Amino acid sequence: MAEDLNADRLTEAVADSFDDTADPRLRQVLQSLTRHLHAFINEVELTYEEWEAGVDFLTRTGKTCTETRQEFILLSDVLGASMLVETLNDVHTPEATASTVLGPFHMIDSPRRGLGEHISPQSAGQLCVVHGHVRDSRGAAIAAALVDVWQANADGFYDVQQPGVQDEGNGRALLTTDESGRFYFQSVVPSYYPIPTDGPVGELLSATGRHEFRPAHIHFIVTAPGYRELTTHIFVNDSKYMDSDAVFAVKESLVRDFVARPAGTPNPCGISEGFVEAQIDLVLHYDGMESTL
Amino acid sequence: MAEDLNADRLTEAVADSFDDTADPRLRQVLQSLTRHLHAFINEVELTYEEWEAGVDFLTRTGKTCTETRQEFILLSDVLGASMLVETLNDVHTPEATASTVLGPFHMIDSPRRGLGEHISPQSAGQLCVVHGHVRDSRGAAIAAALVDVWQANADGFYDVQQPGVQDEGNGRALLTTDESGRFYFQSVVPSYYPIPTDGPVGELLSATGRHEFRPAHIHFIVTAPGYRELTTHIFVNDSKYMDSDAVFAVKESLVRDFVARPAGTPNPCGISEGFVEAQIDLVLHYDGMESTL
Repeated sequence: MAEDLNADRLTEAVADSFDDTADPRLRQVLQSLTRHLHAFINEVELTYEEWEAGVDFLTRTGKTCTETRQEFILLSDVLGASMLVETLNDVHTPEATASTVLGPFHMIDSPRRGLGEHISPQSAGQLCVVHGHVRDSRGAAIAAALVDVWQANADGFYDVQQPGVQDEGNGRALLTTDESGRFYFQSVVPSYYPIPTDGPVGELLSATGRHEFRPAHIHFIVTAPGYRELTTHIFVNDSKYMDSDAVFAVKESLVRDFVARPAGTPNPCGISEGFVEAQIDLVLHYDGMESTL
Repeated sequence: MAEDLNADRLTEAVADSFDDTADPRLRQVLQSLTRHLHAFINEVELTYEEWEAGVDFLTRTGKTCTETRQEFILLSDVLGASMLVETLNDVHTPEATASTVLGPFHMIDSPRRGLGEHISPQSAGQLCVVHGHVRDSRGAAIAAALVDVWQANADGFYDVQQPGVQDEGNGRALLTTDESGRFYFQSVVPSYYPIPTDGPVGELLSATGRHEFRPAHIHFIVTAPGYRELTTHIFVNDSKYMDSDAVFAVKESLVRDFVARPAGTPNPCGISEGFVEAQIDLVLHYDGMESTL
């Protein structure tokens, strides 16, 4: 005969229901998830109406996802969960570049571009030259590393957010470092921007009096054989919202100066007009080497 | 300047970001949710790949929801969260009928039917007569109470799960108790049944070695002015899976005998053939009266 389960025994009964899970890691994750989910519901004594509102919110979050929009990543971002996962998994030598969140806009493949090309050819804005090396923790250059770059334009939009415009791949590039480990490209200086607010996550921010802005940044994913993949941003120093990023992803070590240079300043892209220069070295953690952390 | 947030400070920074929430209850719920979500991620040291799998799972759960299917309620059910919310909010005098989960199949309005009608006219199966009174905690009958009933058929399917068949409303009824507080209807004895396993929740059960069955039951929502709405099931005694309900919703006090009666047995529906009889009194909690719990 069934017994009535009170709140405490219910939690353990649900946790026990996962005892036969073949994969021990899946069992661990689901039993922990069960206990923390129940602890939350118990702590706030969640009402039936609040549970209904939660179900509706999650359902609409799923429905908002498309090929080019990931509202659940956005939700994870504004709850700091994405950054927490990044922080827990960001084990590297002190010399290596810190990681930060992927964000919801890495939705399409970046087009391959040659070094020195303009990666945002369809965007107006302040011309910018970004250059640097991919290195290992001891300073050695890594040739033929893949550098995946994506960024918002000077109006604060990613290409995929402007479906009326035929510019998929604008503001994106897949580059390969040269034999000296160098990469360089032209672009426009990105703007701070709002995360999308026309969906459930926007409702959440609005209901809680939180702003929706992220400080200006350029995204990078850097890969090279033998090294840990690096997912990070470089933030534009002095950008608005640096102290209150809507997704909690700023690290001081990732902020770089973007410096105005007059016409005629030497640069790897060979342009003669004035530009804004950002020098960015990206240092990878050698995966065969145990972290000292 | 931004500071790098370690895992502990990150959690508090996210919690603090909700400080300006106008509604104090929403602030409390979100700050508690943040801390428990982060505690879960910290405890299992969630990997990036697991986070990605979680985002994908939640996205597909949202996409699986339709007008007649609610996969997030199903997920809440198999994680025991629905039953926990019911248990926490099920405050009533000891005499009142216990509540249990709504379940995911209360998706369409039940058709109004007269007392004594067959509520599953398109289902084959064992003929069943269900009858009883809606009462208050002191035993007094409640006339003109609304009794919303829904159930699976003898094959274990709800009407909305059989989209090929034009039988929406089959196995459902909205009844009104008579002047003596009585309700009665004909139906078929419901079967135990599997919750839907062709979506993400089915994957979860399969990966964890859990079965997908619920013991046989009939759902009720009973409403009457002045009384607390009652959402519950009545379970069919001796049904398979009574001790391992996939959604943890069985309470011993909700189990009733379904007894075979020979042809000619008096019954309120006026049928002359043999039938299975279930007597079910549903006792409401007077909402103006403080609970003694």
